[in-house]
Amino acid sequence: MKTQVAIIGAGPSGLLLGQLLSRQGIDNVILERKSGEYVLSRIRAGVLEQGMVDLLREAGVDARMNEEGLPHDGVELAFDNRRVRVDLAGLTGGKTVMVYGQTEVTRDLMEAREVTGGTTIYEADNVRPHDLDSDAPYVTFDKNGETIRLDCDYVAGCDGFHGVSRQSIPKDRIKEFEKVYPFGWLGLLADTPPVSDELIYARHERGFALCSMRSPTRSRYYVQVPLDEEVEDWSDERFWEELKRRLPEEVAANLVTGPSIEKSIAPLRSFVVEPMQYGRMFLVGDAAHIVPPTGAKGLNLAASDVNTLYRLLVKVYHEGRTDLIPNYSRICLKRIWKAERFSWWMTSLLHKFSDEEDFGTRMQQAELDYLTSSEAGLKTIAENYVGLPYESLE
Amino acid sequence: MKTQVAIIGAGPSGLLLGQLLSRQGIDNVILERKSGEYVLSRIRAGVLEQGMVDLLREAGVDARMNEEGLPHDGVELAFDNRRVRVDLAGLTGGKTVMVYGQTEVTRDLMEAREVTGGTTIYEADNVRPHDLDSDAPYVTFDKNGETIRLDCDYVAGCDGFHGVSRQSIPKDRIKEFEKVYPFGWLGLLADTPPVSDELIYARHERGFALCSMRSPTRSRYYVQVPLDEEVEDWSDERFWEELKRRLPEEVAANLVTGPSIEKSIAPLRSFVVEPMQYGRMFLVGDAAHIVPPTGAKGLNLAASDVNTLYRLLVKVYHEGRTDLIPNYSRICLKRIWKAERFSWWMTSLLHKFSDEEDFGTRMQQAELDYLTSSEAGLKTIAENYVGLPYESLE
Repeated sequence: MKTQVAIIGAGPSGLLLGQLLSRQGIDNVILERKSGEYVLSRIRAGVLEQGMVDLLREAGVDARMNEEGLPHDGVELAFDNRRVRVDLAGLTGGKTVMVYGQTEVTRDLMEAREVTGGTTIYEADNVRPHDLDSDAPYVTFDKNGETIRLDCDYVAGCDGFHGVSRQSIPKDRIKEFEKVYPFGWLGLLADTPPVSDELIYARHERGFALCSMRSPTRSRYYVQVPLDEEVEDWSDERFWEELKRRLPEEVAANLVTGPSIEKSIAPLRSFVVEPMQYGRMFLVGDAAHIVPPTGAKGLNLAASDVNTLYRLLVKVYHEGRTDLIPNYSRICLKRIWKAERFSWWMTSLLHKFSDEEDFGTRMQQAELDYLTSSEAGLKTIAENYVGLPYESLE
Repeated sequence: MKTQVAIIGAGPSGLLLGQLLSRQGIDNVILERKSGEYVLSRIRAGVLEQGMVDLLREAGVDARMNEEGLPHDGVELAFDNRRVRVDLAGLTGGKTVMVYGQTEVTRDLMEAREVTGGTTIYEADNVRPHDLDSDAPYVTFDKNGETIRLDCDYVAGCDGFHGVSRQSIPKDRIKEFEKVYPFGWLGLLADTPPVSDELIYARHERGFALCSMRSPTRSRYYVQVPLDEEVEDWSDERFWEELKRRLPEEVAANLVTGPSIEKSIAPLRSFVVEPMQYGRMFLVGDAAHIVPPTGAKGLNLAASDVNTLYRLLVKVYHEGRTDLIPNYSRICLKRIWKAERFSWWMTSLLHKFSDEEDFGTRMQQAELDYLTSSEAGLKTIAENYVGLPYESLE
């Protein structure tokens, strides 16, 4: 087989990149280890920055999002039994975010690809990129017991943190940066109306809590838990009780509980690899960087990588500008690191790190006290939350 | 002896409080363990917030400051061999800071007190407050071999971190919060013209550096050093060389070096005690809280405590409002904690914490990159640097 761009991974970033490239007449093949149903079964983020919304529009996959997505022009911080609204639109000159589940984005992209006629090979086993530092890279994979070779000009590694792409780079050619947090998030999905129209990020002496939603009838809630916690120990009832205790009373009083559809514990991690490219392979999204979910940046960072890679490849194929290729990592990382900082900072601000009231606790309280009493402070939250501008290609 | 307010410590906070009270006809006696010459020999901070400048004016000790003080309407951040100016005045609606050495403030206050005729007892040994939780507290001290008793209504503990005031509070009535940093500041004072009209806070891979000044002909420079460093190992030449390496090239090229007048190493510490009062004693300034010098908040926080205590005592003696007395600590701490946060944050942002480029290093770089490219980000620095508003008494 032969294509221009081999894309490893059919998650939202691989699918979005494929769709954007296909619309520009750039041939691509997506290889995915799992089945399409499996990909769709993963419960992930649901807050899209304006930049990602615009990119989905550019890819022509915005019809259902326009109809079902929930534009949010504010988020709330809750602490000391009170609520402070961060007026995203008012503080950023009108920018907003869109609540629309990652699962829905993936589904829309899959359907769009079917219409476009792009090739996606699901259940491709043993995917391996080769000769990445040559002018003729290729990817091999096993399908129905046969090993297939896919020749290509470039490889896009969209296969996530545990994927093969980053692991194919010689260790001495990259540097990894990592921070692991001493807690996780226990998440619960339920078909109940959200307790509030806007997301509520709550700092509490018992630990962080987040009220979010996927739709007007589907809620997603989280509570901070120790890393060694077992999801089996958390009945729905225990979860709802714990959540209520961490919310301002007036919020807790309005919480509608119900049976969980899904319940799981996820660790929190900050991770970045430098550089995000090796020869003719580019790492995209989680393959190159992970953020803790506080701040809702994970999927949006994948989209900003896709934006950069897509525009670079258009320059390559339409204008012969291969000279821009070496810039990919630098362009991406400039924005990535700022979002890593925001995610780390918001995590540090709102989570419980110590069992006693210590200097760190007081720093969190003082920072919340300062930020929520300063327009400049609130603006720094708002402009990061809606997403900093995409970087230019030069 | 008898007075209304016994003030322990004749540093700038004790002297300023005494002067303000005297002008309102409230009798006070200041007790100081050291001599006046010793107090004046201590080299300390030199950046005064507008609030402190206003308070010195209210105390009538602004004549020389008005003449010799240097109003600064900006500070600089230096990193990656470049300089970014924080336009203090432009970002805060015209607020500025005043560069005027603590030694000068102290000298002016001493002279003013001589004119006012207030009692200051220097070289008072073995100062001890007594019966603080009663309606009739008193302070004893030894002078010329005799033990003297000073009866009073209230005691103001202005005797610094190592003073007797805080130590006189039963341990189970207060809680201490502390953070010690793994480095110190090596400071050098020289009669050389400052390298720049404005302060320069520099982050560098070799460590933090600060260019500051006391006057147009007297400079004060600092470099971050390990805690176990000995000042004897730092010749003037070595200091100047190290300083130059940490500054942007264009700044280093303009540095005028010269023999040091003073050179010393100070550790960096964050410390707060809660509450800042016990019975009829109030802790003021360093007796209750310490900040690392990054951000220049130490003396200014003492002034903001003085402001609060002075206004409370005026209410007590002129309006009989003793009901406000219990508010002292709460009022002070609201502002103290925010300044502690700013000082901790600025310290964390600009110092070297690790010998290798790690996640923390990247967070510093990303934060500087973000802040200096965001007006809201710069404004958060500016409004904290010039000083957040004083809290009201209620």
